Amino acid sequence: MFDFDDATAISADGSATVRPGWDIGGNANGGYVLAVLARAMGFAGGRPDPVTINAHYLAPVTVGPVRTETTIVKTGKRFTTVTGSLYQGRREALRATATFGDALADVGAVTYSTLSPLELPAMDECVGRPASNGGIEVGLLHHVDVRLHPDQANILVGPKTGVAEVSGWFAFRDGRPIDGLALLLAADSFPPAVFNLDVPSGWVPTVELTVHLRLRPQPGPLRARFVTHHVADGMFEEDGELWDSADQLVAMSRQLALVAK
Amino acid sequence: MFDFDDATAISADGSATVRPGWDIGGNANGGYVLAVLARAMGFAGGRPDPVTINAHYLAPVTVGPVRTETTIVKTGKRFTTVTGSLYQGRREALRATATFGDALADVGAVTYSTLSPLELPAMDECVGRPASNGGIEVGLLHHVDVRLHPDQANILVGPKTGVAEVSGWFAFRDGRPIDGLALLLAADSFPPAVFNLDVPSGWVPTVELTVHLRLRPQPGPLRARFVTHHVADGMFEEDGELWDSADQLVAMSRQLALVAK
Repeated sequence: MFDFDDATAISADGSATVRPGWDIGGNANGGYVLAVLARAMGFAGGRPDPVTINAHYLAPVTVGPVRTETTIVKTGKRFTTVTGSLYQGRREALRATATFGDALADVGAVTYSTLSPLELPAMDECVGRPASNGGIEVGLLHHVDVRLHPDQANILVGPKTGVAEVSGWFAFRDGRPIDGLALLLAADSFPPAVFNLDVPSGWVPTVELTVHLRLRPQPGPLRARFVTHHVADGMFEEDGELWDSADQLVAMSRQLALVAK
Repeated sequence: MFDFDDATAISADGSATVRPGWDIGGNANGGYVLAVLARAMGFAGGRPDPVTINAHYLAPVTVGPVRTETTIVKTGKRFTTVTGSLYQGRREALRATATFGDALADVGAVTYSTLSPLELPAMDECVGRPASNGGIEVGLLHHVDVRLHPDQANILVGPKTGVAEVSGWFAFRDGRPIDGLALLLAADSFPPAVFNLDVPSGWVPTVELTVHLRLRPQPGPLRARFVTHHVADGMFEEDGELWDSADQLVAMSRQLALVAK
């Protein structure tokens, strides 16, 4: 069993365990927690892959037992919509709603695109994600191998690029294949794009994250790019594109997050 | 009372009435229905403006009575997260989750942006939104005045631009000011950007819509731009930017929608 499958395992009663080493400074990574809940939601709905999932982050989650609750909103011919809550103790930490389709296609017929597959230096020419976020230890890196574009990797000590963009490679350290659930993790595994601006690094809490899953990735590491277009009044959006080894767009993400004013 | 306030009125028991003339071919516009539900959710949570709201579209809604149900997920110091369902008869048609903040600011300090305020010809040099979508009558235009960029307005008879972008002006016909609730309507009031491609026009159902509200608009009509980057396997995303009369970005939207393969 791969680490990620163990760390997202759901018992028949909906309980799960947040495992060590998927955290940022002791708080479980938001993509990891979302993957736990999405897995429970997929079991409930009987369809594996959400074409779109939204999550509102309510409270931090730490290592230990959690409980998921899921409700089917609608089962249709093509889609099943499911809501899910993840509780730690008596506190709800994450509320998600997703519309699941049938299994993602492996290859997608692209009828129109203005996007170009992300070009990156080879994985071994990229730079491991810094093991701290402004002094906060990134435990997540025990399980995932995130390598940043060398021009964008000086997010802590500088010189920063001044452009809110971070791109790089994503893979599991134990070689686990990347499926729909792993795309949810990948969508939140990179340092915030705003760390390349002159804003305070450190904690930039996600208010809400939406991920569209477009295709099942082909084998091999992902490439991902995260861009923030507009920071105002202490809030910003961050948009992600995730590309597979066959140069296919496999997911898009957008989150709304907070930064010190 | 302005039309939109009447059409989104919520009774103490959560009931509401979908009014005529806010439809596309008999089905109530998705932004309008979302505004009805968001208004009920705002009352429930005690905070008026969602900073982010997600809606999963489950079934069409037609003129007549509807019922809203809302549940507060969490009330915090800064945000209140609320879920809402809109039912018509016994069928749930819309499920939304939103994180509400305090009233949106009128003016926002922009600390970083790569976006430029949308440049458009004057409103009277733009072209009224076509009164049909590929033969489907757009009743919504009884209440809202949507004027498209003249270069992008030939979405029905052509010549199409071949670029999935639609931009233009948005105002209420009765002069109602544009607030947070109206931004939800505006985010779904333009013809789909993909209508400027060689794809079949007509019904492109929204699976899920997310809107981030960033500021309360200054008085005057909005300008909005909607762009689709990637159409594959019959699914596409559409991203919107909404700008106020003071050149401020007031909202961003993203939806996942379906088009014939």
